[in-house]
Formats: sequence, C-alpha cells, structure tokens
Amino acid sequence: MEATRWLTARFRARYAETDQMGVVYHSHYFVWFEVGRAEWCRQRGIAYRDMEREGGIYIVVAEAHCRYKAPARYDDEIEVRTCLRAVRKRVLVFGYEIYRTSDQTLLAEGETTHVIAGRDGRPRSLPERYRRLFEQVVA
Amino acid sequence: MEATRWLTARFRARYAETDQMGVVYHSHYFVWFEVGRAEWCRQRGIAYRDMEREGGIYIVVAEAHCRYKAPARYDDEIEVRTCLRAVRKRVLVFGYEIYRTSDQTLLAEGETTHVIAGRDGRPRSLPERYRRLFEQVVA
Amino acid sequence: MEATRWLTARFRARYAETDQMGVVYHSHYFVWFEVGRAEWCRQRGIAYRDMEREGGIYIVVAEAHCRYKAPARYDDEIEVRTCLRAVRKRVLVFGYEIYRTSDQTLLAEGETTHVIAGRDGRPRSLPERYRRLFEQVVA
Amino acid sequence: MEATRWLTARFRARYAETDQMGVVYHSHYFVWFEVGRAEWCRQRGIAYRDMEREGGIYIVVAEAHCRYKAPARYDDEIEVRTCLRAVRKRVLVFGYEIYRTSDQTLLAEGETTHVIAGRDGRPRSLPERYRRLFEQVVA
Repeated sequence: MEATRWLTARFRARYAETDQMGVVYHSHYFVWFEVGRAEWCRQRGIAYRDMEREGGIYIVVAEAHCRYKAPARYDDEIEVRTCLRAVRKRVLVFGYEIYRTSDQTLLAEGETTHVIAGRDGRPRSLPERYRRLFEQVVA
Repeated sequence: MEATRWLTARFRARYAETDQMGVVYHSHYFVWFEVGRAEWCRQRGIAYRDMEREGGIYIVVAEAHCRYKAPARYDDEIEVRTCLRAVRKRVLVFGYEIYRTSDQTLLAEGETTHVIAGRDGRPRSLPERYRRLFEQVVA
Repeated sequence: MEATRWLTARFRARYAETDQMGVVYHSHYFVWFEVGRAEWCRQRGIAYRDMEREGGIYIVVAEAHCRYKAPARYDDEIEVRTCLRAVRKRVLVFGYEIYRTSDQTLLAEGETTHVIAGRDGRPRSLPERYRRLFEQVVA
Repeated sequence: MEATRWLTARFRARYAETDQMGVVYHSHYFVWFEVGRAEWCRQRGIAYRDMEREGGIYIVVAEAHCRYKAPARYDDEIEVRTCLRAVRKRVLVFGYEIYRTSDQTLLAEGETTHVIAGRDGRPRSLPERYRRLFEQVVA
C-alpha cells in the first residue's frame, strides 16, 4: 500500500506537559502521537477502543522515534498530522508531524511501529475485517 | 484501629515532573503518595500486585487531598512518609507527609481514601486474610 | 464575591491516562482541572500565559482536592466544568465538576486553592488590573 | 571518543505508569532514559542541575528513539543502563538498555541525541570544563 493522506488532531499544550526549561517535555510528544493515531482511526471509522474490547485486538508499540525541531510552549495550539505508512499482516507503521497552529512551525516529526497482539499479549495477525478497514483508507 | 507508624519511601524528583515554574507540578504528588503506599505495603509484607492478580482485590481511590507547603525541585531527594489512618470493612485511609531529605523541609501533606473493589469494579469487603494483614500493622 | 457560573472544557481521555485497572489514573484529574481552569480564564479574556510572561504573576497551587464518583475510560469525551469560588487579595479558589459527555455521568468533583506569587516564588497581591478581570466575571 | 561503560539506575515501575493493557505505557521509557542519564551524570561527578542553574547550560533533546522488546509491569524492579556514545562540541549522544532486575530480561533499548543550548534556548558549545568532565569518563 501507499501511505495515506495526513489527518489532523488539534489540542492545546497543557501546563502539566511543560518542564523547567519552559517548553513541553520531550516524552509527551509520544502521547501526542497517540492522540493523532486515535483521531486518524476515528476519522477513518475505526474505533480502537472497540477493537480492544470486542475484538481482543491490541496494537502494541514496538518502536518509537521522534526528531525535535522547535519547542512547543504552554497553551500553544498543537496540530498532530498522522498518516498510515504501512499495513502488513502483523505490523502497522504510522508517521507524524507536529505543528504549532498559529505560525505553522514544524515542531517535530516521528514514526511508530506497532505489532498486533491478542488478549494474551502474543503476536497475531490483524483479522481480515480490520485489515480491510486500514487498507481501504489508502489512496 | 489507631494509626500506624510512618514508613518511608525515597527517590529523586525527575526532570519530567517539573513544570515551567521550575518546580514539581502538583499532580505528581499524588503519584508520589502512591509510591509511598506501595512501599508501606511492601514493608508490611503485603504485595499489592498479588492482591490484584491473585486475589482480584482492587484498592480504588475514592478521594484524594494534598496541601502544598514548599516546592520540590528537580533532583531533590524526596521522602514520602506513609501511615495507615483507618481500616474498615470496605475502606482504607492513608496519610502522607512529603519531605526534602537534605534539609527535612515538609513539602506537602495529604490523605487518600480508598474503597475495596472486585474484578468487576464493584465495591466488596476486604477479605479477612488481607484485613488481618492491614490491621496487624497497628501499634 | 459570589461564585461565577460554570464554564466548560471538552476533550477525550487519552490512552496514556489509563492504568492497569482499565480506567483513568486518579492523578490525571488534577491535570484535567488545570485544563478547565485555563479554559475558564481564556473564555473570560484572561490569558494565564501572558500573566506569567508579561506580568510575572504566578498562580501557585496551595491545596487540591478531588472526590471520585465513577471511572473515566479511554476515549470517553470528558467535560470539565469550572467556576471561580473566591477571589481574595492573594488567594483564588476554583471548583470543578467532571462529566462524561455521552451520558452526563458525574465522574468527579474537586477544588483547588491558589496563592499569587511573583517571579521569585514569594507570595504577592494580585495586581489590581488582574483582580478586576477575575472579579468582573462574577454574576 | 569511544563509548563509555554502562552505569545503572534502579527503581520500581509505578502504578501511574501502567496503561489499560496492563503494562508500562511506552512514553514512560523516555522518562526512564532521563533517570538513567541523570544517574550517569551523578556517578561521574556531573551535577546536571548545577549545569543549568549556575552554568546556564541546557542539554536539549533533539532526537529520541526506543525499541520495545518485552513489557514492563507494575512493581517490576527496573534497571536502566546508560552509556555516553558520543561527545562533540555541541552534541551528546546517550545509549540505554532497560532490564527487569528479577530475570534480567532486556525490555527495551534506545538512544537520545542532545544539543547544547544556553539560557536563551540557542545552540552553543559545551564549555571546556564541562566537556572535559564528559570526555574524561571515557575508557
């Protein structure tokens, strides 16, 4: 599959997310990636919550990477743009770009790789019906 | 029962826990209370992890309170002193004091009230064998 | 002054905010209170960010309290309703109610008390122009 | 310079760090890397806190990467092994391995790249006396 187009989630940087340098602490960008991923799924009609609850399908983080370009500050409106880079039988790869809305500065970009697991935590294949949902979004 | 004596957990304030005021963000004190509570249990021979896993007993937070006296700063060694204030059939109350080790400044004090719940999230009584473990620690 | 009417902030519970009980971990409610407080200020024309940056006025948490009624779960849309309960020369008191939007269940209620401090961390009076901004919002 | 030998920090996984999959949420590993980094500095006689406060030297995260191998669980004793992989005029690279103490399972490995900045947030060179402190640790 080719990468999907980018979908956007928006929210404000929280005071709790800043550190004593006066900027958002770097680990929170990975939480923001997750917010982007959830929004990507929601806009594509995939309820990750139900995949876990009803399908017993867990999307587990296997690898995470972020490159920081410019600091996010308290109360900045943040845009997380998310795309699906790859779907394979047992693997999903998402890409992210984080922007400050006000001046469209690119703050960070990153990627997460996920493996599909069942309730027991063991790797398994993404069931066909979910796989179609992820794949249909391409193009 | 009377309140138990205080038991102490020690660790350093993390950079991730500071905010842009240059001090530890206030919500983290409730995480520190939990670290104190876990250590209190461990020192008393109660493995909370096993209570959940094997006993299906969950200690759910019903109320939490903290009074902040002085700021904690990055890399301060922190002492959380924890005591059990009350054990009832379905309720536990813990008290906390947080100190900076270096000068023994009292940074905060607080209290959490917990209800006992089962795997289904419903309130239940603390089983007798666990209750004895909590009560024996008095005096 | 009398308490102001409630203003509302809305967002979704994040995966990162859940714990192994399958519900939102209790300390995050205090972060949610802060989101509500920031939104309350914004809707009233008070930019807390600028108070800090330009005015050198810091609103420091002196006391925090939360009573938990029902669990918040991943992806729930959350409403934080915030009101200002008291304004004094050096003290602000905010009240909060947290609801799940879908069924309007009250999940938690709480209160935070704040003291005004300057850049040096010392208590000071809320400057007249800011005090008017907070007080005007009453009624 | 060649990479330094590994130094170890130890602590327990906190309840607040777990998520609804019953394992430690992935973004916390980056906080654990920071705990490892702080401990590495402390054992080498470098007080990062003082570098910031007195030297006005900030070590800013420019890139972060983690590969997850096995889940960490609540109350696991965790070991973060940290080494300095590179020191250049304006760049530091740290490597990490995270183990569960009890069975020495490798849970994750990662790397962070940092740039040196001054109080104004602008890149600057690491002052000679600090550079020597980092470099002396090699071999």
